Amino acid sequence: MRDVVITGIGSTVFGKHRDLPIEVLAVDAAAQAIVDSGVDRERIGALYLGNFVSGPLNGKEVLAGIVADSLGLPNIPCTKVEGACASGGIAFRHAWLAVASGLCDAVLVVGVEKMMHASTVEVTSALNCAMDNENDGTTGLTFPGLFGLAWVAHAQRYGTTRGQVSAVVKKNKQFGVTNTLAQMGRKLTDNEIEESTEICDPLRLFDCCPPSDGAAALVLTAKSMKSSSSQSPVDVLFSAQTRGAARIAGHPDMCSFDATVQAAKLAYAATGLTPQDVDVVELHDCFSIAEIVDSEDLGIVPRGKGGVWAQDGRTGLGGEVTINASGGLLSKGHPVGATGVGQVYEVVRQLRGEHPNQVEGAHVGLTHNLGGTGVACTVSILRRGT
Amino acid sequence: MRDVVITGIGSTVFGKHRDLPIEVLAVDAAAQAIVDSGVDRERIGALYLGNFVSGPLNGKEVLAGIVADSLGLPNIPCTKVEGACASGGIAFRHAWLAVASGLCDAVLVVGVEKMMHASTVEVTSALNCAMDNENDGTTGLTFPGLFGLAWVAHAQRYGTTRGQVSAVVKKNKQFGVTNTLAQMGRKLTDNEIEESTEICDPLRLFDCCPPSDGAAALVLTAKSMKSSSSQSPVDVLFSAQTRGAARIAGHPDMCSFDATVQAAKLAYAATGLTPQDVDVVELHDCFSIAEIVDSEDLGIVPRGKGGVWAQDGRTGLGGEVTINASGGLLSKGHPVGATGVGQVYEVVRQLRGEHPNQVEGAHVGLTHNLGGTGVACTVSILRRGT
Repeated sequence: MRDVVITGIGSTVFGKHRDLPIEVLAVDAAAQAIVDSGVDRERIGALYLGNFVSGPLNGKEVLAGIVADSLGLPNIPCTKVEGACASGGIAFRHAWLAVASGLCDAVLVVGVEKMMHASTVEVTSALNCAMDNENDGTTGLTFPGLFGLAWVAHAQRYGTTRGQVSAVVKKNKQFGVTNTLAQMGRKLTDNEIEESTEICDPLRLFDCCPPSDGAAALVLTAKSMKSSSSQSPVDVLFSAQTRGAARIAGHPDMCSFDATVQAAKLAYAATGLTPQDVDVVELHDCFSIAEIVDSEDLGIVPRGKGGVWAQDGRTGLGGEVTINASGGLLSKGHPVGATGVGQVYEVVRQLRGEHPNQVEGAHVGLTHNLGGTGVACTVSILRRGT
Repeated sequence: MRDVVITGIGSTVFGKHRDLPIEVLAVDAAAQAIVDSGVDRERIGALYLGNFVSGPLNGKEVLAGIVADSLGLPNIPCTKVEGACASGGIAFRHAWLAVASGLCDAVLVVGVEKMMHASTVEVTSALNCAMDNENDGTTGLTFPGLFGLAWVAHAQRYGTTRGQVSAVVKKNKQFGVTNTLAQMGRKLTDNEIEESTEICDPLRLFDCCPPSDGAAALVLTAKSMKSSSSQSPVDVLFSAQTRGAARIAGHPDMCSFDATVQAAKLAYAATGLTPQDVDVVELHDCFSIAEIVDSEDLGIVPRGKGGVWAQDGRTGLGGEVTINASGGLLSKGHPVGATGVGQVYEVVRQLRGEHPNQVEGAHVGLTHNLGGTGVACTVSILRRGT
């Protein structure tokens, strides 16, 4: 496998882009990434596009080809990949593999979703495509239901308190204030969180990520390829993709997602790194409790201590590890197919030393993207370029 | 790149499966392929699933993970890929790449679609996701419109007659009679074809492939891997994936799809074979005229001679080359995401010498899968195992 670097990044603001067609969002982010990388577009050998529900919500598929056409890329393989909320992470992994395997010298990866124009019923219905409705749907569970159960289970087993969970919300919403790409940064009090609309007990409105429109993009190149970028390349050390149970009843433990545990193990084993080597993490906080569960599954925080660490500020700026300095899904937003690519975008900004919520001396970063009821997961590890 | 073989194949009947959930179709075909290959499922290192519109038509995504879970596969990367009608071909290519690159020793590829439960309006609306509606939609063109234009252009330039186009329909519908997997085999006369319902002048009902339900699956393994299959392995020599214009106005020539021309060039160059080396072809005859255009784009038939060759029986059994002995999309059916995988299934049966419409001495086979308005294409070349 060849060494791979990220030489270019691009992103739209995450939020409302009601009047722009979905491919315009993707092209905007992609064009930024190409310019940032300085790569000659004739050298781009493949395009991977992560998207979840452009069919149901935008009446449009073959987005990978449409985006490549709009960008004037050559006659290259253009592939949409889908794995529910992990679609972006899967696209990133395939771009990495295409370069690492020697198939291409440069690959463009784009993640995109457009949801805000649709009604709540339409969006909920589309998001439920990530669940095996014929099985889980009959239980009445939706995604807030699943993560509400996780919260209750975590509280019962580890004594996790509402105040600890709210600490995650406060941290991520605060990060969003200074990340100009974020959809809804806000300084919140415990009271505001806990008195917000009940969604699915114990989850309140501020415990849930919003639907979003947005796109993010990256250019990956072989490290050996001469780059004209003025930016420091960031090393992609590994990207793991795993599968967990496809139905809720298949999860042996509501306090953990096996796909995350396995993907993290693969990534640490392949890189020789440990969780303690990681300085910055962008993880899949689709709900506040998810950040606690994910941080434990990744080994970043000791099992059962996710809430305590959040409340003690150990996962904030200046803590042992900084989680979701972008604001995370909770605050930056969750344009589903874009999320996994956007996470890498944020970690690259950290490793370049140019993040609005910069972690001093950030050297190693990790991204974690989780799909459906934990059915798909990617974990990728990046390092400041050498 | 390592040598790759196909050791197992599976398929449902293409047609109506109204009462089966989409993943059951996929699991049926996949289980057949696994048994046929004799591979230990613990050795399967990845799953690629080709599907186009399970979101809009089945309210279900993350099908790759759902199918793997149902099959009891290990915790492996499971990825849905989408490129409109070329989704299955793209899934096959990625499975081939995963084995050829050394990433996996064995990979399962599945293609699936379920459309027959939906109304004509719902199906048409879903199929139009393969077109850039915001651009092409405003011209009033649908897919029958696009291929109707191709017919008119081909007739004007090359003198192609309705009788020649009907010869394609008669051949493929006849092949469907003896292929028990086919949706609508039938012995047809010119009159029956030409007096069938007008769809979009000059296309009549029998010139158009039907919507279908169905799934097909394959197991690909490294040639060096010891196999317990009783079947002769089939060599995968190469699989090319290309992009063409994403909008109809971007096509410089209505008598040709550039993505096909480029993919074929890549496949011939990589294998050192010529069109004359190919004995059996499964190509993308979504409409009768498409078989004529495709056969010329692939170099299988001289430019402008597609109609003449069909009428003269040179593309039927006993001809220079046999095209769509399965019945093709016109007769076997077109469960979109399954089609590209089903084409490989059919060619493997030919190269094993067990096809219901067997081509004597078939040694080299080619599959061609085309998506959208020619925006995505795959061409793969297979050879009888050595």
